[in-house]
Amino acid sequence: MRAMVPLIEYEDASSEVRAVYDDIMETRGSDRVNNFWKAIASDPATLERVWAQVKAVMGPGEIDPLVKEMIYVAISVTNNCEYCIRSHSAAAKNKGMSDAQFGELMAVVALANQTNRLANGYQIPVDDAFR
Amino acid sequence: MRAMVPLIEYEDASSEVRAVYDDIMETRGSDRVNNFWKAIASDPATLERVWAQVKAVMGPGEIDPLVKEMIYVAISVTNNCEYCIRSHSAAAKNKGMSDAQFGELMAVVALANQTNRLANGYQIPVDDAFR
Amino acid sequence: MRAMVPLIEYEDASSEVRAVYDDIMETRGSDRVNNFWKAIASDPATLERVWAQVKAVMGPGEIDPLVKEMIYVAISVTNNCEYCIRSHSAAAKNKGMSDAQFGELMAVVALANQTNRLANGYQIPVDDAFR
Amino acid sequence: MRAMVPLIEYEDASSEVRAVYDDIMETRGSDRVNNFWKAIASDPATLERVWAQVKAVMGPGEIDPLVKEMIYVAISVTNNCEYCIRSHSAAAKNKGMSDAQFGELMAVVALANQTNRLANGYQIPVDDAFR
Amino acid sequence: MRAMVPLIEYEDASSEVRAVYDDIMETRGSDRVNNFWKAIASDPATLERVWAQVKAVMGPGEIDPLVKEMIYVAISVTNNCEYCIRSHSAAAKNKGMSDAQFGELMAVVALANQTNRLANGYQIPVDDAFR
Amino acid sequence: MRAMVPLIEYEDASSEVRAVYDDIMETRGSDRVNNFWKAIASDPATLERVWAQVKAVMGPGEIDPLVKEMIYVAISVTNNCEYCIRSHSAAAKNKGMSDAQFGELMAVVALANQTNRLANGYQIPVDDAFR
Repeated sequence: MRAMVPLIEYEDASSEVRAVYDDIMETRGSDRVNNFWKAIASDPATLERVWAQVKAVMGPGEIDPLVKEMIYVAISVTNNCEYCIRSHSAAAKNKGMSDAQFGELMAVVALANQTNRLANGYQIPVDDAFR
Repeated sequence: MRAMVPLIEYEDASSEVRAVYDDIMETRGSDRVNNFWKAIASDPATLERVWAQVKAVMGPGEIDPLVKEMIYVAISVTNNCEYCIRSHSAAAKNKGMSDAQFGELMAVVALANQTNRLANGYQIPVDDAFR
Repeated sequence: MRAMVPLIEYEDASSEVRAVYDDIMETRGSDRVNNFWKAIASDPATLERVWAQVKAVMGPGEIDPLVKEMIYVAISVTNNCEYCIRSHSAAAKNKGMSDAQFGELMAVVALANQTNRLANGYQIPVDDAFR
Repeated sequence: MRAMVPLIEYEDASSEVRAVYDDIMETRGSDRVNNFWKAIASDPATLERVWAQVKAVMGPGEIDPLVKEMIYVAISVTNNCEYCIRSHSAAAKNKGMSDAQFGELMAVVALANQTNRLANGYQIPVDDAFR
Repeated sequence: MRAMVPLIEYEDASSEVRAVYDDIMETRGSDRVNNFWKAIASDPATLERVWAQVKAVMGPGEIDPLVKEMIYVAISVTNNCEYCIRSHSAAAKNKGMSDAQFGELMAVVALANQTNRLANGYQIPVDDAFR
Repeated sequence: MRAMVPLIEYEDASSEVRAVYDDIMETRGSDRVNNFWKAIASDPATLERVWAQVKAVMGPGEIDPLVKEMIYVAISVTNNCEYCIRSHSAAAKNKGMSDAQFGELMAVVALANQTNRLANGYQIPVDDAFR
C-alpha cells in the first residue's frame, strides 16, 4: 500500500530538502536516506524539525548511542510501530546489538508491559520511598 | 485511594509468600519489599511467577542492569504507569543513573513517541533494507 | 481535582436527563447514578447515546453479564482508566466475581499485554491456519 | 515480511526447545506449534518462561478457559496486535465461541474503549462507593 | 488477509442491514458503502448502533465536520489504526483538507504524543490555574 | 506527589532558561509559565527543543490555532495524560472553545476510539478507494 504522501527522492527534492538529506547522509556515513525522511519531506518544516531532534538526541551524550537505539526499539514495540521496530532494530544492530541482546531486550519489553498492567490493575499506591 | 486488594505485610503472610519476600529482599540487599509485591501477593501464584521473571530478566546478562531499568522507565512512561515510572526510576538511580541521564532518557522517550506517530500517520512503507 | 464539567445531580437535571437517570436506576435496581453519568449529562446527547449502548450491550445476551464486566475491567486496565477499573470491578463483584477470579483476571491481562508485545516485537507472521 | 528472527522448526530445534514444543503439543492435543513459539524459541529462556505462564494461566481455574480466550482477544484488539487477535480468536472458536459471541465481544470492546476515554476526558472523580 | 467475518454486500444483506446501507449512502451522497460497514454488518445491532452514532456525531454541529474528520485522523494515528487513518483521511480530503493541512495535522499529532510523554515522564503536577 | 525533578522558578533559572521563559510569556501574552516548562527546564536542551516546536507548530498556519488545541486535547484524552488534558483544554477555552464544543469534542474522541477498535477487531481490509 502507498504512503499517505509521495516519497520525495533526492533528485526531485528542493534545495532545502536536499540540505537535510545531505546532513543525514553525512552524519550517518550513508549514501541513502530512509523512506521515513522521504515521506516527511512532503512537509519540509517537519523534516527539518524532526531531523534536528534526531541529530541532537540520538548522538553521543550521557547515554550510549546503542542504548538509545534499544530504548527506541522498546518504545516502538510497546506502541506497535512496525516501521520503527524494523528501522531502529537495524540501527541497533549496526551499532553492535547482538542477537542475544535483542532477545533480552524483548524479554524486558514483555516484562515491563506486563507489570505496568499489574500495577494499574491492582491500583497499587506509590511507596513513600518513591514519592 | 486504596489498592484493589489488601496489601499483605510480612507478618501476615503465608509461608509461601514469605519465601518470595525473603528472596526479593536477599536478591536486592534490602530489608523491605515494595507495595507492588505486597499487592500481587494476594494471588500467590502471580507473585511467584512475576518475581521469577523479574529475577531472571532484570539481573546481569547481555544488557547492563542499569540499561534495563532505563528501558523499563521508557516503557512505563509510554504506557503512563505512575507506579512503575517512580519505582523503576528509583531503581535506576540506585544503579547509578544521573540526573543528566534521566533528562536524556526522557528526550529519547519523547522523540520515539513522536516519530512512531509520524511513521504511522504517513503510513510509511518499510525500506527494502529493513525487511 | 474537579471534573472538567460540573456533575449534574438529579434535582438539578432537566427532564430529559432525569429520564435517563430514572432508566439507569430502574435497570440497575439502584437508587443512585454514578459520577460517570452525572458528568456526561453535561452533554445530554452523549448521555443518551452512551446509556443506550451500555443498556443494549452489557445486559444478558450471548455472553454472560459477569463475563462482560470482566472483559470491561481487562480493557480498562490495559488502557489505564482508573475510574473504569474501579467502577467495573465493583460491578463485576456485584455480579459475583470472587477475589480469586479477580486475581486470575489480572493474570490473564498481564499475560496478554506481555505476549502482545512479543508478537509485535518479533514481528511474527500470522500462521496460515489463522488467516 | 520476515520475522525479526528465524523461525525455529522442530527438526532444527535444540533438545531444550523440543521439550517445550512437545509439552505445547501434548497440552493442546495438537501436532504443530504456532509461529509464535517458533519465533520466541530463538531465545530459549523466553520460550520456557512464556510457555510456563501460558500453561499456568490459560488452563482451567477460577475463570472458564473460553472466557480467558475472549478476554485475551479483547486486550489484543485494544492493543492492535494482529497476530494475537487472529490466534486467540481461533483458540476461542476452538473452545466454542460462536459467531454471535464474537460479535458481542467486539461490541463490549468498542464500548469499553469509548467509555474509558469519556472517563478520562471528563476527568471524572471516582465515586466514594468505589474507593 | 481476510477479515474476521465475511463482508456483507448489499445484494446479500437482510432488509434491516439494507436499510442502514441505504441511509449511509443517502447521507453521504455516495453509491457505495465502505468495508467497515460491510464487516460490522455481520452483527446488525452493532451496525445500527455505530451508524447512528456516526450520523449524529460527525455531521454539522458545534464543530465543523472537516475539523471532526481531522480529529478522527489524529486519534487513529495515535492508536495506529491503519483502516481508520486511510478512511478518515480520505473523508477529510473530500471535505476540503489540503496537503498542507494534512502535514500540519501530522505535526500536531507528533508534538502532542511527544509532550504527553514528557508530562507523564516528569510526573508534572497540574498547575493551580488548570484545576 | 512531587515531580521527578525540581520545578525551576524564574528567579532560580539560568540565563538560557530565562530566555525561553521570556519568549513563552511574550508569545502567550502571559506573566507566568506553566509547570510543564518549569519541569523540563531541568534539561535546558529539551526545554529549548520542545518550546521551539510548540511555537512553530501551534501558532497560526494552515489549521486554526483553536482547532489545533482541540486536536491536542483529543490526543491527550486518548493517551490519558491528565496534565495535557487540563492544560490544553484551558488553552482551547482561552481561544474560544465553548462548553458545547467541548462536549462535541469528547463525543468525537469517544466515537473514534470505539471505531478504531472495531476496525482492528474485525481486521477490516482497506477499501481499494482508500489505498
